[in-house]
Amino acid sequence: MKVISDVTIVPIGVGVSLSKYIAACERIFKEAGLHPHLHAYGTNVEGEWDAVFAAIKRCHEVIHEMGTPRISTTIRVGTRTDRDQTINDKVKSVQQKLSRR
Amino acid sequence: MKVISDVTIVPIGVGVSLSKYIAACERIFKEAGLHPHLHAYGTNVEGEWDAVFAAIKRCHEVIHEMGTPRISTTIRVGTRTDRDQTINDKVKSVQQKLSRR
Amino acid sequence: MKVISDVTIVPIGVGVSLSKYIAACERIFKEAGLHPHLHAYGTNVEGEWDAVFAAIKRCHEVIHEMGTPRISTTIRVGTRTDRDQTINDKVKSVQQKLSRR
Amino acid sequence: MKVISDVTIVPIGVGVSLSKYIAACERIFKEAGLHPHLHAYGTNVEGEWDAVFAAIKRCHEVIHEMGTPRISTTIRVGTRTDRDQTINDKVKSVQQKLSRR
Repeated sequence: MKVISDVTIVPIGVGVSLSKYIAACERIFKEAGLHPHLHAYGTNVEGEWDAVFAAIKRCHEVIHEMGTPRISTTIRVGTRTDRDQTINDKVKSVQQKLSRR
Repeated sequence: MKVISDVTIVPIGVGVSLSKYIAACERIFKEAGLHPHLHAYGTNVEGEWDAVFAAIKRCHEVIHEMGTPRISTTIRVGTRTDRDQTINDKVKSVQQKLSRR
Repeated sequence: MKVISDVTIVPIGVGVSLSKYIAACERIFKEAGLHPHLHAYGTNVEGEWDAVFAAIKRCHEVIHEMGTPRISTTIRVGTRTDRDQTINDKVKSVQQKLSRR
Repeated sequence: MKVISDVTIVPIGVGVSLSKYIAACERIFKEAGLHPHLHAYGTNVEGEWDAVFAAIKRCHEVIHEMGTPRISTTIRVGTRTDRDQTINDKVKSVQQKLSRR
């Protein structure tokens, strides 16, 4: 089952500068081959369900190992059986509607 | 790694009545022993990371099998290494602050 | 436009104990008459769009005033034009499906 | 109070093709001057609290007017009092950590 997902990880109890933790997770997504696309409030990833969620779990493990006592994460995840769709397809689909106006 | 999670599943392409799909997922959480607590915009579950995410995956599989072509789910998931905490602990902790006012 | 919403507020930069901030926000929801229902990963509220979002904004203002430098909030919000629905209706609708099995 | 937000709107009861509704909302964000950055699972926007939430409300109104009976939206919203930060700042901050490895 293929998924397109969007992941926002919030480390708690380590102050207000969170980018080094986000970067650690970004590397995990890259090494897992999940085509991460970083944006200002999360990261898009795509791949098989198990690969995506194994990587998210690894992010929690690594960010705890970096000394973070608490993590609150929000994950959006979409699956569809009617057709294959990539991150690029989804963005293009909206952009085509925008340009057609 | 223990998690407290909150899961909102939105089946797409099956009209506006979604409760039978939510109920199917609720049964999966119960059978997995994840102490589901249903609220008006999702379900709290708690358990080991792998058990919780296996159940959420199973929800997607079953809801697709029920004829849903597309599903968009939002998951909040929290982990902490500083102490054990249950769903009941979290709610009580806030309620104590409220009653002390 | 009536909404059913679910709000999770995460204060950042104030350590790992967040319940006093959540309690402050809970009081704001109560005083605004939004029928807050606290659960382990957020709070359900219902009311008119403007009243609900004014209360969420007030939560951010008050939690910043309590000394929190950064806040990350997740809001789920649902609207429908086909019929009126309350927090109780939504929960009952799923529970009826569960009991009918 | 300035916010960086990320908005995912899911129209329900109108089938599986949602891009025209997302495009309608994208136009609302552009016209409101909120610097929308579309990604595969939502849209980043930034601006004053009231302007951002007025635009999200307008999205719900317009998508209902387009014939959608039900909408489920997820909003992430961040505020901070310690410093000004833009969408670009947030992305750059992580990218710098990644390149320094």
